[in-house]
Amino acid sequence: MRNLTLLTDFYELTMMQAYHHTQQATGRKQTAVFDMFYRENPCGSGYAVAAGLQQVIDYINNLSFTDDDINYLRGTDTFNEDFLTYLKKFRFTGDIYAVPEGTVIFPGEPLVRVTAPLMEAQFIETAILNIINHQCLIATKAARVCWAALGDRVLEFGLRRAQGPDAGVYGARAAMIGGCSGTSNVLAGQLFNVPVRGTHAHSWIMSFETELEAFRYYARLYPNACTLLVDTYDTLKSGVPNAIKIFNELKQEGITLTNYGIRLDSGDLAYLSKQARKMLDEAGFDDAFISASNDLDEYIISELKAQGAKVSVWGVGTHLITSKEYPAFGGVYKMAALKTEGSPWQNKIKLSEDPIKVTNPGQKKIFRLYDIFSGKMKADLITTYDETVTNEADLTIFDPIATWKKMTLKAKEFTVKELLQPVFKDGKSVYPTYTVTEICEHAKKERETLWDEHRRLVRPHLMPVDLSQKLYDIKQKMISELRR
Amino acid sequence: MRNLTLLTDFYELTMMQAYHHTQQATGRKQTAVFDMFYRENPCGSGYAVAAGLQQVIDYINNLSFTDDDINYLRGTDTFNEDFLTYLKKFRFTGDIYAVPEGTVIFPGEPLVRVTAPLMEAQFIETAILNIINHQCLIATKAARVCWAALGDRVLEFGLRRAQGPDAGVYGARAAMIGGCSGTSNVLAGQLFNVPVRGTHAHSWIMSFETELEAFRYYARLYPNACTLLVDTYDTLKSGVPNAIKIFNELKQEGITLTNYGIRLDSGDLAYLSKQARKMLDEAGFDDAFISASNDLDEYIISELKAQGAKVSVWGVGTHLITSKEYPAFGGVYKMAALKTEGSPWQNKIKLSEDPIKVTNPGQKKIFRLYDIFSGKMKADLITTYDETVTNEADLTIFDPIATWKKMTLKAKEFTVKELLQPVFKDGKSVYPTYTVTEICEHAKKERETLWDEHRRLVRPHLMPVDLSQKLYDIKQKMISELRR
Repeated sequence: MRNLTLLTDFYELTMMQAYHHTQQATGRKQTAVFDMFYRENPCGSGYAVAAGLQQVIDYINNLSFTDDDINYLRGTDTFNEDFLTYLKKFRFTGDIYAVPEGTVIFPGEPLVRVTAPLMEAQFIETAILNIINHQCLIATKAARVCWAALGDRVLEFGLRRAQGPDAGVYGARAAMIGGCSGTSNVLAGQLFNVPVRGTHAHSWIMSFETELEAFRYYARLYPNACTLLVDTYDTLKSGVPNAIKIFNELKQEGITLTNYGIRLDSGDLAYLSKQARKMLDEAGFDDAFISASNDLDEYIISELKAQGAKVSVWGVGTHLITSKEYPAFGGVYKMAALKTEGSPWQNKIKLSEDPIKVTNPGQKKIFRLYDIFSGKMKADLITTYDETVTNEADLTIFDPIATWKKMTLKAKEFTVKELLQPVFKDGKSVYPTYTVTEICEHAKKERETLWDEHRRLVRPHLMPVDLSQKLYDIKQKMISELRR
Repeated sequence: MRNLTLLTDFYELTMMQAYHHTQQATGRKQTAVFDMFYRENPCGSGYAVAAGLQQVIDYINNLSFTDDDINYLRGTDTFNEDFLTYLKKFRFTGDIYAVPEGTVIFPGEPLVRVTAPLMEAQFIETAILNIINHQCLIATKAARVCWAALGDRVLEFGLRRAQGPDAGVYGARAAMIGGCSGTSNVLAGQLFNVPVRGTHAHSWIMSFETELEAFRYYARLYPNACTLLVDTYDTLKSGVPNAIKIFNELKQEGITLTNYGIRLDSGDLAYLSKQARKMLDEAGFDDAFISASNDLDEYIISELKAQGAKVSVWGVGTHLITSKEYPAFGGVYKMAALKTEGSPWQNKIKLSEDPIKVTNPGQKKIFRLYDIFSGKMKADLITTYDETVTNEADLTIFDPIATWKKMTLKAKEFTVKELLQPVFKDGKSVYPTYTVTEICEHAKKERETLWDEHRRLVRPHLMPVDLSQKLYDIKQKMISELRR
């Protein structure tokens, strides 16, 4: 397990020393609540997908400054020995609550809530943002791509275009959580026990005198996982006929082909796949699949499906692994409350001219409300930490910006789920370790709680994320006081 | 050092086993030349910056399948014991030439040239692309941002929005090569011995009753690196006056402030910086710097400079660390030549309907030509491996697509530099280890060999990258033969 303790912005350490210094000088001990949340769904999506929590847990569990780290920090001429001694013994001692991976999430909701001594809570900001921002981004992009593929398998093929090794490996993990069926990334396969897929490149074909010979060697070696890449010379005049020739050869020798087909990697995928399908069917290979790749994203896949492309497996690379259209999730980490030893908790708010950028103060909970008949989600309700929401009585909720937009859920006609789960208690991990396969199953069920209208690629219907009356009142009061 | 051996696409391994199987079955031993090159400069740039080679060297040096790796691969039910035994002893035994990091590069030029047994050359494709694509991307983006800043310092602040830990760490490294003066990323600072920078966040201010008190504590602790963030409440009514108050306090106490100033993180940076400059100057703090951040990129910096913004340090985050506008470099790895034992080398070419996508066959060299008077670059010339270019005689070069575009360089009026340098010989690293600081110095000189016209952010003048007559003829002959 990698120790990422120094994976932080320098200002976390300079602030930390300043807190430490203030505490030493004045005896002021402070505990803070920070929320990690995001403000806008990537790619114009109607939702996002939570991912990365396991890597945050690993990061926190491994937090520890080695002697090398201390020596390095000493060399920056910024830190005093008193503080460096404190760092040597540093570990995280606070509480963390978080939304489980795979859960559908919306802007403004705390995905990770940290309650800890101010120095600790501040220090872990950068790594939490780095990890969660990345994986939520790719999981969300993958969910969009898989939605466009209408149930076809989608494979993550982006390692070579990922922004470094981790972007490839954790991007593949997130892509699986978003709904992909497999990845080309072998290291991700090993680390997360997810299916790895892939066959051969153009260079395999080019290393033989003829395409037919290259296909022949390949198919004989891999009769149970045989995808022949048919576009090296000419897809319809050479590639597909040669593939059919080889499939016939094996059939005549009594070798049963299972899980076999062709891959298109250039040209017009709608036209070529329809022609290739016809040729394969006419040759009696109607169980051969057609897979496609080449700079695909959710929009192109959606259009190709609309044009009747006969593709059943989609290999998606660059656009998925970088979320090319929208390559940064934009999550932030803001102080929501602060307690100085000996005084009560103080709520904190960050104002902005833009209403959507004003933070929600205090320690909060998220309740998700479902329609009991369809099982679909109705809304999320953010409350203060001491509120609870049940379906015992009718529940009226309202939009926190356009407050005249109201919705009443009838008692017993809705169910309630609380989203934030305990992850660390007093610095100890209390969260179960889920396999990526388990997370994927949860994620699939989560996406099915959304109406199609929320999953649409373009201009989706937006899910209400409301504030309880109590939280709304606290927030309004703080805004008025600060604006005075 | 991390072992990234399994950081590869699955198809590299299935192809490798197929090559291995073919070799066992037929005795066919093959050696290949692969070129890593790219086809389009990111962000409409007139050039790109080479970066990532040191990480490729580390990757190759560490290549080795552990027992765990072998067991994992066995579990995929794809590989036979014969091949797994081969993998156990696998190491890279070939030659690699590459363009040094920091060098200015252009589309179509082989940045990395691998000559090795086909199985080995094929296997290392994915990791080379992953590493080089990422770092070239960020180095190029950084060069653009620094160009826009017209000599002001640019700091890399993007770790929280980077696509995972490596994207932050190696992105920071690449940003330094591209011209940044420092990074907020402490781990990058430790690993690459580059300056780390940063002060405090809004949360520091929010943890005190008043902004003034927060500033006071901070400035007293860091009088030699004191940047006060002035936009928490109101930049011009509260932040800047409070900062001035604190600077005055320290001055009166005889504490000398060096390297001090303010940071703007929201609002209109042109207006606010001009007003803040005026206030600081009038208070006698004309040596206080103004730094700015908030979703900056090269275009906004360029506009702000044009509007006379009084900013001298730019903190650039998301747009730089993800190259948000253009988040994938798009480098590819193509076979250029193949030799079967007992036969001569065969050149290889990959055709495409798009002339720019047709590869250059054979083992090649790149010669860079400079004007002797200005020291500026005139053109690059790609030749076959057995050619050499000197300035002894006049040299006429021509555009390989629009062949009527010709340029003649007069003998002795130009100088010649060969770009590809030996990196591995027979599997052994023969390349010097350069510090990032040394690479940055080389990179700076490299950028200065470009005319401003090539460095312009929008619609730059394009550098000629021509083919020698010999290489051109070989390529045309192969194209005609294949099209027949």
